[in-house]
This record gives sequence, C-alpha cells and structure tokens, in this order.
Amino acid sequence: MTPEEAEAIGQDILARQPFSNALGVEIVSLTVGTCALRLPLEERHTQHLGMAHGGVVASLADMALAFAGGLLMGEGSVTQEFKINFLRPGKGEALVARSEVVGSGRNQAVVRADVLSVEGGAEKLCATAQGTIMRAAR
Amino acid sequence: MTPEEAEAIGQDILARQPFSNALGVEIVSLTVGTCALRLPLEERHTQHLGMAHGGVVASLADMALAFAGGLLMGEGSVTQEFKINFLRPGKGEALVARSEVVGSGRNQAVVRADVLSVEGGAEKLCATAQGTIMRAAR
Amino acid sequence: MTPEEAEAIGQDILARQPFSNALGVEIVSLTVGTCALRLPLEERHTQHLGMAHGGVVASLADMALAFAGGLLMGEGSVTQEFKINFLRPGKGEALVARSEVVGSGRNQAVVRADVLSVEGGAEKLCATAQGTIMRAAR
Amino acid sequence: MTPEEAEAIGQDILARQPFSNALGVEIVSLTVGTCALRLPLEERHTQHLGMAHGGVVASLADMALAFAGGLLMGEGSVTQEFKINFLRPGKGEALVARSEVVGSGRNQAVVRADVLSVEGGAEKLCATAQGTIMRAAR
Repeated sequence: MTPEEAEAIGQDILARQPFSNALGVEIVSLTVGTCALRLPLEERHTQHLGMAHGGVVASLADMALAFAGGLLMGEGSVTQEFKINFLRPGKGEALVARSEVVGSGRNQAVVRADVLSVEGGAEKLCATAQGTIMRAAR
Repeated sequence: MTPEEAEAIGQDILARQPFSNALGVEIVSLTVGTCALRLPLEERHTQHLGMAHGGVVASLADMALAFAGGLLMGEGSVTQEFKINFLRPGKGEALVARSEVVGSGRNQAVVRADVLSVEGGAEKLCATAQGTIMRAAR
Repeated sequence: MTPEEAEAIGQDILARQPFSNALGVEIVSLTVGTCALRLPLEERHTQHLGMAHGGVVASLADMALAFAGGLLMGEGSVTQEFKINFLRPGKGEALVARSEVVGSGRNQAVVRADVLSVEGGAEKLCATAQGTIMRAAR
Repeated sequence: MTPEEAEAIGQDILARQPFSNALGVEIVSLTVGTCALRLPLEERHTQHLGMAHGGVVASLADMALAFAGGLLMGEGSVTQEFKINFLRPGKGEALVARSEVVGSGRNQAVVRADVLSVEGGAEKLCATAQGTIMRAAR
C-alpha cells in the first residue's frame, strides 16, 4: 500500500465516523503502522477544571491506536482493548496523538500512542496508551 | 456523606463539564464508591459501522470510574490511568455504565466499571474497565 | 464438562508447568470460567522489604486468569494481555487468587482476578487484575 | 546520581530480593530512568508447552519497570500498576528486558518495558509493558 493509498483509506473512514467528526479530529499523517492525529481544542472538549476531559484524551488515543493498527490488520479489524496513563492536563491550542505498531502477530497488532498538548507551539506529553487491534474473525 | 449529598456533588460537577454535557451523559445514581451513568445513543455517537465509537464507550467508562472513585478520594482527585476491554459493539437505545470501588489506599482508589448496551430494555455487557483515581497532591 | 473433568484438566496442566510448581501454586477449585489458586508464602517469594514480590503476585494473577479463561477458550489458548493494580503488600501465610470470566466472544474471554493476602485466616485484597485469554488460531 | 551510584543501588536492592535471585535475574545496566535486565532461561522457567511462563515474562517486565522508575521516585517507591501484552513465546537462551521512563509527575513515573527473547544471539520482541511507579507516601 502506498502512503497515498493509506491516507486515502484513513480519510474515507474518518469521514464516515460521526463521533470523530463531531469531536473535530483531523488526520495529520497515516501509514500502515503509524498515525498522527490532531484535535484543535475548544471549550466543548473540557471538564469542570477547564482542561481537556479524560474522555477526549482517551478517544483521541483510541483513534490513533485503531488507525495505525487497523491498516495493518485490515478491513473490519477492531480495537480489542487499550490502557492509558494520564501524565499532565490536556490544554493549549490542540492535542496531537502519535501512534505506532510495536509488534504484531497473525491476528493482533500491539500499538502505542502518545497524546501531547500543544501550547504556544510547544509539545508536552499529556498521556500515553498501549492497546490491541484485532483482525476481523474469519 | 448522605446519598443526597453525594448525588448533589455529582450533578454539580457534571453540570460544569462541557464535554460530558455535549456527549449527553446523565447520572442515574451516585454514592461514595459507586456510580451508574446513562447515555442515550444517537447517530452522532457512532463510528463508520453504525456502532457506538470506542471513544464514546471509553469516555463513559472513564466518567463512571472518576465519579465513583472521586467522591472517595475527594476534591481535586483525578483519573490517573485506566484500561478497557471491548466485548461487544455498543448499540441500542442507550449505554449504561456501572462502577464500584474495589479497593483503596491512602492516595488511590481502584475502581471497576462495566458498560452495557441497552437494546429493547435488555442489557448486554459491551465493555469492562479498571482504573485508578488518585487523590490530589497536598 | 463436569467440575471433576475441569479440575482434572487443570491439575494435569499445572503438573506439567515447571514454573508454577517451582513457585508452589496449588489449585483450590476450577470450573469452566472460574478458578481459585493458593500459594503458601515463603521467604523465597519476597522482595527486599519482606513482602511478596510484585512478580509473584502478578504470576499468581496470570495463572488464575489463564485457568479460568483457558477452560472456556480451549486447548492451546494463551494469555494475550493483562493489567494488574496493586493495593496492599502481599504477606501472611498465603496468597489466594480468585478469578472469573466476565464476558467472552468467539475468540476471546475477558477475565478478572483478585489476589488476596491470607493473614491469621483473614483475607485482604492485595491486587486486582483484568486480562484476555485468546483462543488458539485455527 | 552518577551511573556508578545508580547501578550500585540497583545491585544492592537486587541482592536483597529473594524472589529475583531465585528467578536468576541479572542487572545489565541501570540509570535514573532506564534499566536493562537479563534472565538466562532454564527449564524451571517454563510452562507446559516448553515456553517461558507468562508469569516469568511479567515478573521480568515488572522488575524492569520498578528499577527504571524507582531510581527516579526514590526510596520506598512501589509499582502501583502495570499492563503487559504478550506477542511471541519467550524462548531461547535468555530473556532481556529494557525499560525507560516516558514521563513523570510529582508522585508518579510512567514507564515502558520491552521483553525480548534472545535466540542464537538474535532478539525478538516477546512482550511489552506499561506501568506506574508511585513515590512513597509522605
């Protein structure tokens, strides 16, 4: 698969995901095994202390895991599980998520994703996730 | 803390969380150590296959963990980490999350949450999560 | 499968696991979907502070997850992943692990396990785990 | 702390851990924030299929997480939680674990560890873990 084909598949899937679109997620780059997403932060993404809600951070991580691993595991693959550790509040002008497949077998890809806060152009690690994308049952 | 006080604190926090409100989450019940939330499903919660997006399911689990553990750990406590396993697609008229603290120490509460799909009134386990709510640093 | 058959399969597998035997793990009960294990604590199980090493607690949790889910997922099934939260030091005369399948699909069983310290006959929650047992690829 | 001091602290702690010694774990290198461990594989580390038991792999990951994060979080710090994904059977002449702190706050360090099988001198990723080392309560 060429980088252009990978990104086209990703953009097509994203366009058909009402939740991702409502959230405001954009694909920065996508290959078979890596992904970068960007979410411009708005007030509607926050919790009661003015930071990005943990659910927003986790959703962005989930999407980055699924895109990177999903292109490798193929159509119909799904996120089977993930875990996320929160390190700093998500704030600033945007959140960026970067993911990569760290290993894979016949039916699973294990993927890591970092979520970073972008504030005044500087990035700080906000959360880090690890999860499994499972090939569709045949 | 009486059940009435617990629920009042939860409703007050929820009311000040733009993301939770935009998502449409409602508190069904809340005590110090347990929580039940409900999210009426709409098209805007879905991914490209018409099911609830994993980020929606994870966000609901995150909120259920944080409410149940947060009342125990006190003001300013935060979700430190969680993991979630997805078992079935989230669909039907609503998602319901039920959580409870399974153990706690001086500075942490370990909490479990089940997310269930409600379809025609019947509940099916959709995902299950386990995470840590950390007391605010003093 | 009768309870007698389930326990016989478990005892046979345990007998052929050098690590489990070297550790000293005993099966208390085993059905398709639930398991109870016991590990009499000795000095060789400890870390530098005299408590059960986290690796011992995690190993016992891993075994309890694998036995409960493995009987459901069948021969050749393996532990795909798990997470564990530590709540209290493992100490006393024994550790006990109790696990149960909380949900399953065609190719995976999601299982929870609690590890308890037994001290003077009283049990205290030491750690809690959640993981996935995957059916063997066909 | 100099690299020599870091390694001396690690060797001293390891020497006082009966479980780690019984298992056969060796420190390859240790700094404040990174760690490499080695475990020469023997028959006593295996499960019923002849591979390293998942508990052995998880124990080695746990130790690598705790050493890397522990030097940063200071004396009395403990592993609060971790998750591990298994990718390939652990086999060959040794297991090697390499860990590094990916982020830290006042009271926690989030650490990743890879466990690799060494077979004929070649390394293959066997498992990958992510966890939290918590500073001792004051």
